[in-house]
Amino acid sequence: MLSEILKKETEPMIEAIYTDAFIQGLVHGDIDDDAVMHYLRADALYLEEFAKLYAMLMSKTDSKETVRFMMGQMTFLLDGESEAHAVLARAVNRPYEDIIENGEWYPSADHYIKHMYFNACTREDIAYAISAMAPCPYVYRRLGQMAMERNTFAADHPYRKWFEFYANDMNDTVDVMFSIIDDAVMHMAEKEVDVLKKNYVESTEHERRFFNMAATKERWDGVGINV
Amino acid sequence: MLSEILKKETEPMIEAIYTDAFIQGLVHGDIDDDAVMHYLRADALYLEEFAKLYAMLMSKTDSKETVRFMMGQMTFLLDGESEAHAVLARAVNRPYEDIIENGEWYPSADHYIKHMYFNACTREDIAYAISAMAPCPYVYRRLGQMAMERNTFAADHPYRKWFEFYANDMNDTVDVMFSIIDDAVMHMAEKEVDVLKKNYVESTEHERRFFNMAATKERWDGVGINV
Amino acid sequence: MLSEILKKETEPMIEAIYTDAFIQGLVHGDIDDDAVMHYLRADALYLEEFAKLYAMLMSKTDSKETVRFMMGQMTFLLDGESEAHAVLARAVNRPYEDIIENGEWYPSADHYIKHMYFNACTREDIAYAISAMAPCPYVYRRLGQMAMERNTFAADHPYRKWFEFYANDMNDTVDVMFSIIDDAVMHMAEKEVDVLKKNYVESTEHERRFFNMAATKERWDGVGINV
Amino acid sequence: MLSEILKKETEPMIEAIYTDAFIQGLVHGDIDDDAVMHYLRADALYLEEFAKLYAMLMSKTDSKETVRFMMGQMTFLLDGESEAHAVLARAVNRPYEDIIENGEWYPSADHYIKHMYFNACTREDIAYAISAMAPCPYVYRRLGQMAMERNTFAADHPYRKWFEFYANDMNDTVDVMFSIIDDAVMHMAEKEVDVLKKNYVESTEHERRFFNMAATKERWDGVGINV
Repeated sequence: MLSEILKKETEPMIEAIYTDAFIQGLVHGDIDDDAVMHYLRADALYLEEFAKLYAMLMSKTDSKETVRFMMGQMTFLLDGESEAHAVLARAVNRPYEDIIENGEWYPSADHYIKHMYFNACTREDIAYAISAMAPCPYVYRRLGQMAMERNTFAADHPYRKWFEFYANDMNDTVDVMFSIIDDAVMHMAEKEVDVLKKNYVESTEHERRFFNMAATKERWDGVGINV
Repeated sequence: MLSEILKKETEPMIEAIYTDAFIQGLVHGDIDDDAVMHYLRADALYLEEFAKLYAMLMSKTDSKETVRFMMGQMTFLLDGESEAHAVLARAVNRPYEDIIENGEWYPSADHYIKHMYFNACTREDIAYAISAMAPCPYVYRRLGQMAMERNTFAADHPYRKWFEFYANDMNDTVDVMFSIIDDAVMHMAEKEVDVLKKNYVESTEHERRFFNMAATKERWDGVGINV
Repeated sequence: MLSEILKKETEPMIEAIYTDAFIQGLVHGDIDDDAVMHYLRADALYLEEFAKLYAMLMSKTDSKETVRFMMGQMTFLLDGESEAHAVLARAVNRPYEDIIENGEWYPSADHYIKHMYFNACTREDIAYAISAMAPCPYVYRRLGQMAMERNTFAADHPYRKWFEFYANDMNDTVDVMFSIIDDAVMHMAEKEVDVLKKNYVESTEHERRFFNMAATKERWDGVGINV
Repeated sequence: MLSEILKKETEPMIEAIYTDAFIQGLVHGDIDDDAVMHYLRADALYLEEFAKLYAMLMSKTDSKETVRFMMGQMTFLLDGESEAHAVLARAVNRPYEDIIENGEWYPSADHYIKHMYFNACTREDIAYAISAMAPCPYVYRRLGQMAMERNTFAADHPYRKWFEFYANDMNDTVDVMFSIIDDAVMHMAEKEVDVLKKNYVESTEHERRFFNMAATKERWDGVGINV
C-alpha cells in the first residue's frame, strides 16, 4: 500500500527533523523561548487554515464517513488552544493569547499553507490535498514516539507533555487520512499517484522547514519595508 | 434592515406557495402520493448539496461563530432522514430509503441548486450564497406557521406534524442567516446589495418552483433519450 | 463515438426547437419584435458568460491546442455584436446597443448559465463544462441547416442571414468541442460518462427553453417586488 | 498612488537581486551553465502557470479592456520560447527544448507559483493575484535597465540581449498591472490594501529567491526518496 511506502521512505526525513535544533531544543529543555513563541505564532495560524481546508474538502466528497471525520477534526481545531500549545505557552511562562497575538505566515509556514491550498483549490479529488496534509499528524506522532522512546523525561520536564500529546493522540487522524490516499490510488493513473507521492514528500519537507523556521525565527526579508 | 424588507416584500410570494397545489394538498390531506414521493426524491438530494454548500462557506469565513453555526447545521443535515421527511414517508406508507432511491435533480431543483452553487463558487463573500440559501428555512417556517394558524388539524391528520416541524424548528437558522446578510450589507456598495436582494427573491421563487415541480412530477424532457 | 450518439439522439429535441414558436416566427418572418429583443437581451449576456467560461477552462487544461482554440473563441465573443445579432437588430429596426441595454438573466437563461458554471467550477476535467456548452454551437448549426434546407428564403427575408450565419459558420467550434468530449470518454468510468451525457442532453433542453423564454418574454415572478 | 510607493520601497530589494550571484554571473558572463539551465527549467514551467493564472483572472473580471490585455499576454506566453529564453539557451549552447525537458517546480519556484494561485483561487477581486504577479515583469524590467545603465556590454557578450530584452520590452505589461492595483485600492478597506502590499513585497522577495534557486541549483531534499 502506498501509505506504508510513504511512511517507510520518509522516515529518514523525520529522523532529520528529530535531530534538528527545534526538537532537540525541546528534548533537552534548553530551547530559546523566542523560538517556541515563533512556532506558536505560526502554528496557531497554520491550524486555522488546516480547519478551513477540511471544510473545503468536505464540500468535495460524497463520503458521509469522510465528512464526519473532518467535522470531528474541525471541532478539535476550533477549540483553538490545544493541550499541546498550552504546554508550550506554560513552558515560556506567558499567556497563549498574548504570544500568538501578532503572528503571521512566516515564509516556510506560508509555503506549506499555500501548498495545501493549491491542491485543495485546483484538484477535484480530495486525495491530492489529503496527501499534502497527512504528513502533519504523522510527523508529529512519530516525533512524539521517538522522543518518548529515546528519552526518560523527568516529571517536571517542561516539554514532556508536548511529546506525550502527539505520541498518543493522533492515531485515528493518521489512519483515516492514509486510507483516503490508499483508496484513491486504486482508481488513479500512475502519473496521478506520482503527484500524491510528491505532495506527501514535499509536505514532510515542509514540516522540517516549519520547525527550522521557528528555530531561526525566520521572517520575510521585506518585513522592514515601509509600504 | 434588509432582512426585514426581504421578509415583508416576499410575503406575497410565500402566500402564493401556500395557495399552490402542493401545500394545499398537504393541508387537505388529499395530495397525490406520487407528488409527495417526487418531493422527497428531490429534497433528499437538495439537502445533501445544502450541507456541501455550508462546508464550502465554512472554508471562506473567518468567523468562528459562523463556522460553529454551520457545523451544527451540517450535523443536522447529515443525519439525513429528518423528522419532517419521516412524516411524509409515513403518510405515503413506504420506507423512506425506498422512496428516495432513484431521485435526481429534476429541472426546478437543479436550477435552485445551481443558483446556490454559482454564488458559493464565484463569490468570496459568503453573504451571496447565504442570500440564496436563506429563503429555504424562512419559507418553510412561514408555511408551517400559516398552516398551523389557519387550520385545525385533526390529531391523526397525515401531514400535521410536517407543518408543526417547520413552524417550530428553524428559528435559529433563519436568524443567523439573516444576520449574516444584514452584517454584509453594512460594508457593501448598492450594486452588491442588489445582488443579495435578487438572489433572495429568486430563491423564494425557486421554493415555489420546487413545490410545483413535486405537484406536477416535473421531469427533464430528455429523460427518455437513449444516450 | 459518444459525440455521434449525442448528435443522433438529440436530433428530435432539435426538431422540436425548430417547430417551436421562436424559430417558426423567424422562418415565417412574422415573429413579434419584442420576442426578438428579449432574445437579444438574454443572448448578449449569455455570450459574455460563455467567454468567461472559456477563460476558466483555459486555466484548467494543459493542452496548448485547446487553449489556442478557446482564445480564438473568446476573441470572437469579445467582438460582441456578431453578424447574427446584427441581423436581428436590423430586422426589428433598432440599434443593437439600445436593445440590449437592460437585459438580465431571465429564468431559463439563468438556469442554462448556472448549469455551465456548476460544471466549470466544481469539476477539474474540462470535458464536464464542454459537454454542457457544446449544444450551443451544435443546435444553432442544425437549426441554420434545417431552415436553409426546408425553405427558400426571399433575398429580402429579414431573418435569412441569421440562418445562413449559423448554417455556415460554426463547424470548427463544434468539432473541437466534440473531440474534447470523445477524448475524455476514453479514460472515464461509465458513471462519469453518464454525467457528460446528462449535461449534454440537459443543455440541449436548455436551448429549447431559451428560445421559448424569448417567445414568451419570460421574466422572474419577483420582478415587480420592491426590495 | 500605491504603485509608486511599491516601486520605490522595493527598489533596495531589486538592488539586492542585481547584486546576487545569478544576475552578477550574467553581467560578467561567467555564470555556471548549470545555473542558467536550472533557471530555464524552472522559468519555462513558471511561465506556463503565469498564462493559466491570466486565464483564471479573465474569468473573474468584467473589464473587456483587462481581458484584451490578458489575452495579449497569454498569446505571448503561449509562444513559449521567448527571445529572452532563446538568448540563454544559445549562451549555454544547447537546444532549448532539451534543456527544459526535465524541469520541475523547485522549492522557490513552487512557493512563488502557489503564492499566485492562492490569491487567484481564494480571492474574487483580481487585484489580489495581480499584486502577486506584477513584480515579475517589473523586477525584470528594472534588472534589465540597471544592467544596461551600469555596464557597456561588448557586442558579443552572451547575455547582453537578455538584459536588452527586459529593459525594453515590458512597459505596457507593467503599467496595466499597476493600474489594476491602483484602481482596486480606491474602493478597498485599509486591511485589504495591506494584503495587496504584502503580496507585492513577498513576490519581489520570491523573485530574489527564484534567481538564488537557479544560482544554487536548489532541489527538494526529498528528491532522492524512492516512493
